[in-house]
Amino acid sequence: MKKMHRVFALFILVFSSSAFADEPSPATDMVWLVTASALVFLMQAGFALLECGMSRSKNALNVVMKNYMDVCLGTIVFWALGYGLMFGSNPSGFIGTDLFFINDSDPSTYGVLLFQTMFAATAVTIASGAMAERTRFDGYLIGALFITAVIYPIFGSWVWNADGWLAQLGFIDFAGSTVVHSVGAWTALAGIIILGPRLGRFNKHGAVRELRGHNLSYVALGGFILWFGWFGFNGGSTLSASVDIGLINLNTQLAAAAGASASMLLAVITRRPILLTETVNGSIAGLVAITAGCATMLPAYAVLTGAVGGVVCSLGSKLLLRMQLDDVVGAVSAHGFAGAWGTLAAGMFYTGNLFDTHLISVQLIGIAACFIWTFCCALIMYFAIDLVMGLRAPSQHEQRGLDLSEHAEIGYPEFNSGNVAYTADRASNLGQRV
Amino acid sequence: MKKMHRVFALFILVFSSSAFADEPSPATDMVWLVTASALVFLMQAGFALLECGMSRSKNALNVVMKNYMDVCLGTIVFWALGYGLMFGSNPSGFIGTDLFFINDSDPSTYGVLLFQTMFAATAVTIASGAMAERTRFDGYLIGALFITAVIYPIFGSWVWNADGWLAQLGFIDFAGSTVVHSVGAWTALAGIIILGPRLGRFNKHGAVRELRGHNLSYVALGGFILWFGWFGFNGGSTLSASVDIGLINLNTQLAAAAGASASMLLAVITRRPILLTETVNGSIAGLVAITAGCATMLPAYAVLTGAVGGVVCSLGSKLLLRMQLDDVVGAVSAHGFAGAWGTLAAGMFYTGNLFDTHLISVQLIGIAACFIWTFCCALIMYFAIDLVMGLRAPSQHEQRGLDLSEHAEIGYPEFNSGNVAYTADRASNLGQRV
Amino acid sequence: MKKMHRVFALFILVFSSSAFADEPSPATDMVWLVTASALVFLMQAGFALLECGMSRSKNALNVVMKNYMDVCLGTIVFWALGYGLMFGSNPSGFIGTDLFFINDSDPSTYGVLLFQTMFAATAVTIASGAMAERTRFDGYLIGALFITAVIYPIFGSWVWNADGWLAQLGFIDFAGSTVVHSVGAWTALAGIIILGPRLGRFNKHGAVRELRGHNLSYVALGGFILWFGWFGFNGGSTLSASVDIGLINLNTQLAAAAGASASMLLAVITRRPILLTETVNGSIAGLVAITAGCATMLPAYAVLTGAVGGVVCSLGSKLLLRMQLDDVVGAVSAHGFAGAWGTLAAGMFYTGNLFDTHLISVQLIGIAACFIWTFCCALIMYFAIDLVMGLRAPSQHEQRGLDLSEHAEIGYPEFNSGNVAYTADRASNLGQRV
Repeated sequence: MKKMHRVFALFILVFSSSAFADEPSPATDMVWLVTASALVFLMQAGFALLECGMSRSKNALNVVMKNYMDVCLGTIVFWALGYGLMFGSNPSGFIGTDLFFINDSDPSTYGVLLFQTMFAATAVTIASGAMAERTRFDGYLIGALFITAVIYPIFGSWVWNADGWLAQLGFIDFAGSTVVHSVGAWTALAGIIILGPRLGRFNKHGAVRELRGHNLSYVALGGFILWFGWFGFNGGSTLSASVDIGLINLNTQLAAAAGASASMLLAVITRRPILLTETVNGSIAGLVAITAGCATMLPAYAVLTGAVGGVVCSLGSKLLLRMQLDDVVGAVSAHGFAGAWGTLAAGMFYTGNLFDTHLISVQLIGIAACFIWTFCCALIMYFAIDLVMGLRAPSQHEQRGLDLSEHAEIGYPEFNSGNVAYTADRASNLGQRV
Repeated sequence: MKKMHRVFALFILVFSSSAFADEPSPATDMVWLVTASALVFLMQAGFALLECGMSRSKNALNVVMKNYMDVCLGTIVFWALGYGLMFGSNPSGFIGTDLFFINDSDPSTYGVLLFQTMFAATAVTIASGAMAERTRFDGYLIGALFITAVIYPIFGSWVWNADGWLAQLGFIDFAGSTVVHSVGAWTALAGIIILGPRLGRFNKHGAVRELRGHNLSYVALGGFILWFGWFGFNGGSTLSASVDIGLINLNTQLAAAAGASASMLLAVITRRPILLTETVNGSIAGLVAITAGCATMLPAYAVLTGAVGGVVCSLGSKLLLRMQLDDVVGAVSAHGFAGAWGTLAAGMFYTGNLFDTHLISVQLIGIAACFIWTFCCALIMYFAIDLVMGLRAPSQHEQRGLDLSEHAEIGYPEFNSGNVAYTADRASNLGQRV
Repeated sequence: MKKMHRVFALFILVFSSSAFADEPSPATDMVWLVTASALVFLMQAGFALLECGMSRSKNALNVVMKNYMDVCLGTIVFWALGYGLMFGSNPSGFIGTDLFFINDSDPSTYGVLLFQTMFAATAVTIASGAMAERTRFDGYLIGALFITAVIYPIFGSWVWNADGWLAQLGFIDFAGSTVVHSVGAWTALAGIIILGPRLGRFNKHGAVRELRGHNLSYVALGGFILWFGWFGFNGGSTLSASVDIGLINLNTQLAAAAGASASMLLAVITRRPILLTETVNGSIAGLVAITAGCATMLPAYAVLTGAVGGVVCSLGSKLLLRMQLDDVVGAVSAHGFAGAWGTLAAGMFYTGNLFDTHLISVQLIGIAACFIWTFCCALIMYFAIDLVMGLRAPSQHEQRGLDLSEHAEIGYPEFNSGNVAYTADRASNLGQRV
C-alpha cells in the first residue's frame, strides 16, 4: 500500500514534469518577454523617424527630442506611479492601488514591468506627431508625463487588470488597439483641438495647404521600424513563450500588408497619386487594427481587418482636414479610427464565435469608454497647460522653427533649405543665440 | 504484475518527458522562429536604405516606395498562392499543389508561413535596386507580384520542398544563397537587360559615367541593418531552437567581415580608392556566399567563402559595366555571382566530406537550374510587361526624377540639389502637379 | 527489493527530468545568446549614426567607413587572436594562451565567440567617434586592429576569464562598464591627446568654437539604436536563458531614462539650453553606468546610478573642453567617466551587501587597473602610429573633408552645404580626383 502511494506520487511528479517539459520554462518565457520588450522599445525610433520626416526641417530636432524625452521621463514615472495604477490591486475595477516604485520583487514582475513600460511609452508618443511643429517643449513634456502617469494607466486598469470593469465584461483587446493606440490617438485629438492648426495650414476660406515633410526616406524607414517593432508588440502580449505567437505575428504581417495595399488601391481607384505618407500610414493602420484581435482571429479575417483599417485611415485623414483639424502625421486617423475599427473587428471575427452580438456590444462599450475617458481628460489637461504656461509656441518661434527657439540647435546646420532668405535669417539668429 | 506494468508505463513517460526536457519545447521553437522572422523583415529597411542611398535624390521616394509596396503586395500573394506552390504536396517534384490561402491550420504552419513570407519578400526586393531610377512603378510592381507568386516559389519547391527534384538529388542550400539570393539576382539581371542603362550612364563610346548615390550614410546604415537581419535569415533557417545556431551565426559574422575586408584589400592592392559602396557590397556578398553552407562548414572555411565572395562581387561589378549593363546597386554581382560561388562553396567545404566531386556536381546542377529557370522566366515576364504597358519610364520622367512623375511627391522638398536650375524646374512642376 | 530499486531509479530520473524542465535547454540558451549577439551587433549602426550625425558632412562617409571597417577587420582578428588571449587558459591570471583560430569546437563555444566578438567590436568603435574628422583612415584602422587583437582582450582576460587576477579578487563588472566601455574610452582619450584638437576647435585664447554636427536626426536615431542594442549587451551577458534577464533589462531601461532625464534637468537648473546631443549622451552614460551592476542591484539604485551617470557625463564634457581636449562625440565622458562611476556603483549598491568597503576598494582597483593598462598602451600605440605613418590627416585634407581625401567619395554629392564657395571647391576637386 505504501508502495502504491509512492508510485502514485511518482505519477503526479512525472505528470507535472511532463507538463513542464511540454511548456517552456520560466527562463524561456523571460527570453521572449525581454526580446519583445526590446522590439517594442525600437518603435520609439520608428515614431521619431516617421514624425521627423513628416515635419519641416526647421522642427526636425524638436520632434525627435520630444520622442526621446517622453520615453525617458515616461519610464521613470511609469515605474513610480503608472504601473501601480494599472496593475495594482484593483478592488473597485477602476484603478490600481499598489505596486508603486517596484523595487524588491520577483523576476517575472520585473519582466512584465519592463514590457509594460514600453507600451506606456508607445501610447504617449503617438500624440507628439499629431501636435508637431507648434507645441512648446515644456508644455508637451508635462502633458506626456501626466498621460503616462495617470490617463493611460487608469484606462489600462479597466482592461488589462484582471479585476478591471471592462475585463470583467469580457472586453477583448489583446495587445492594445484601444488600450494603447486609441488612448494615444484621443489624447492627440484633444491636443490638436486645443492647439489649433499650424500657421498657413488652412487659408481663410478653409482650403488646405500642403506643408510637406522634409524627408520622406525617414518616413519609410520609420514605417519599417514600427512594423518590425510590432512583432514584439503583438507577439509579446502573450507575456510568455507560446506556440500561439505564430498566428499572432502572421496576422500582424498580413494586416500590415493589407492596410498598405488597400490604401494604395484606394488611391488608384479614386485616381489620386499614390503618396508614400498615405501608404505608410495605411500599413500602420493595418497594424493598429489587428492589434486587438491578432490572437483570436483567422488569417483571412486579419487580411480583411487590415485592409479596412487602411481605408478607414485614408478616409479619416480627409475627414479631419475637412474639420480643419491639423494632425501633422495622421496619428488620430491611423491610431484612433483604425484602432476603434480593429477593436470592433476583434469582436466580430472572434474564432468560434463569429459576429456574436453580445461580444460586439461589449467591444463598442469599451471603444466608447476609451474615447470618453481619454478625450475628456486630455482636453482638460491640455486646456489647463495652455492656461497656466502656454501650450502653443509663439508665432515667431513657429515661423523660425522650434529647433532654434526651444533648443538653440538646428537639425541640419549645413544644408540650405529651399528658402534662402529664411535660411539667412536663421543663420543670423543662430549666431546671436548660441 | 499490474504494478510492473504501471512502473513500466511510468518509465516510458519519464523517458519521453526527459527527452522533451533536453530538447526545447515547441513554444521555444516558435519564439526563435518569430524572432528570426522579425529580423528578416527588417532586411526590407536595409534594402530600402541601401538602394535609396545609392540612387539620386530625385528618385529617393520612388525607390523606397517600391521596397515598401513589394513587401506589402508580396505578403498577400505569397499567402494566397506562393506558399502553396512552394511547400504544398509536390508529387512531380516540380511544383506544390495545395496549401493556398492558409487559414485554419496548426501553429507551426502559421510560424513557417510567416518566416517564408519574409524570405519571399527578400528575394523579390533584390531586383528593385538593380532596376532603380528608370522603371515605371506599376510595371515594377506587377513584375514583383509575379516573382513572389510564381517564379520564386516554383524554384523554391525544387529545393526546399522535401519532394523537390533538387532536394532529392541532395542539393545543399541551407538558407538560400541560390533559392533566395540568386533568384533575386537573376530576375534583376533580366530586368536591367530589358530596361537598358539609365540615361547618361554610358557615353557613346561605352565609357562609364558615375551617377553618384545621394546619401552614402544611408548605404552604410542599410548595410548594417541587412547584416543584422541576416542573423535571422541564416540562424532562423533551422526553423527551430537549436544549439546549431551558434555555428551558423558565427559563420555568418565571419563571412560578412571577410567579404568586406577582402573587398577593401582588393582596392588597396589594385591601388583604387576604397569606396564605401564597394565595401558594403563586399560584406553583403560575404553574407550571400555563406548563406548556402553556413550550417555545414567550419569557421575557417566561412572566412574563405566570405572573402572570395567579396572579391567575386567587386570583379563581377566591373564585368557588368564592361557589358554595358547598368545595375544601380550592384545586386546582380552581390547576390547572383556571390550566391553562385557560395552555393558551390557549400558543396566544396561540407564538413566531413570536403571537396566531394558528387556533391560539387549536384551543386553546379542546382546553380545552373536556378539561372536557367529564373533568368528565362524573368526575361519573358519583363519583356511582356514592357510590351503591354511599358516597363521603362519616359525619358522626361527619368530626367526629372520618378518621384515627381510617378508619385507627385519628392523626397526632400526643402533641400536644394546641386543643380539649381533643375530644382526650380522641379518646384514649378510640383506646383502644377499636386 | 528489486522493485524498490527500480522505483528509486525512477525517482532520480523524474527528479532530474523535472530539474531540466525547470531550466531551459541548451538550445534555448543558444537562442538567447544569438538574439543578444544580433542586438549587440546593431549597436555598430547606432555608433555609426551617432558619430556621423555629430560630425560635419564633409567627413560623414569617413566616419561610417571607420565604423564599418573596424567591425569587419576586428571580427577576423578577434577570432584569430583576441578571443584566445581573453578566454584561453590563463595560468598567470594576466593573459590567455590558447583557443586561437577557433575552428572545430562545440556549439556553445561558437555561440560565446560570436557574442564576445560583438563586444570586442563595441569596445573598439568607441574611439572612432572621439577621434573623428582629423584621423587618417589607415592609421585609425591599424590602431583599431591592435586594440581588438591585444589591448582589449588582455584586459578582458583579467576580469572575464575565470582565472584572471581581477576576477579572483572578486571584481564585479557584469556586462562591461569597465571591460568594454572604459577600455574604449581610455583608448579614445589617448587618441585625442596624440591627435590634438580639430582645426578651429579652440581659438588662440583657448575659447571653444562649436563645430556643429551635420545631422542631429541621425544622432537621436543612433541613440535609440544603441539603447535597443544594450538590451542584448546587458541581458545577453547572462550567456544563457535565465529569469534574471528581467531585472537586468529593467535596470538597463531605468538607468538610460534616468541618465537622459538627469542630464536634461541639469541643463534646466543651470539655465543652459537643452541640447539634443547632451541629452542623448546622457542616456548613453546612464546605459554605460548600469552595465557593470545591472544584475546585482535593485531598480531604485539603477535609477540613481543612471542619473548620476548622466550628470557625470555632462560635467565631464565640460572638463575635457577646459583641458583643450577635443572629443567630437563626447565618448570619453559618456563611456569613460560614466563607466568608472558605474563600476564603482556596482560595488556600492550590491544587493545584500550595500556599501561594503572591501567590495568598493576592489572596484576601485579594477577601475585604476583598466585606466593604467589601457591608457598607457593606447598612448604608446597611437604615438608609434603617428611616428611611423602619421595618425593625423594633413591640414588641407582636414579642411576639405576626409571623404574626398581618404575615400574619393562624398557623403551627399547633391546637397549644397551652407558655404557655397567651399562646395564649388569641393566639386572641382571631385572632378579631378575620381
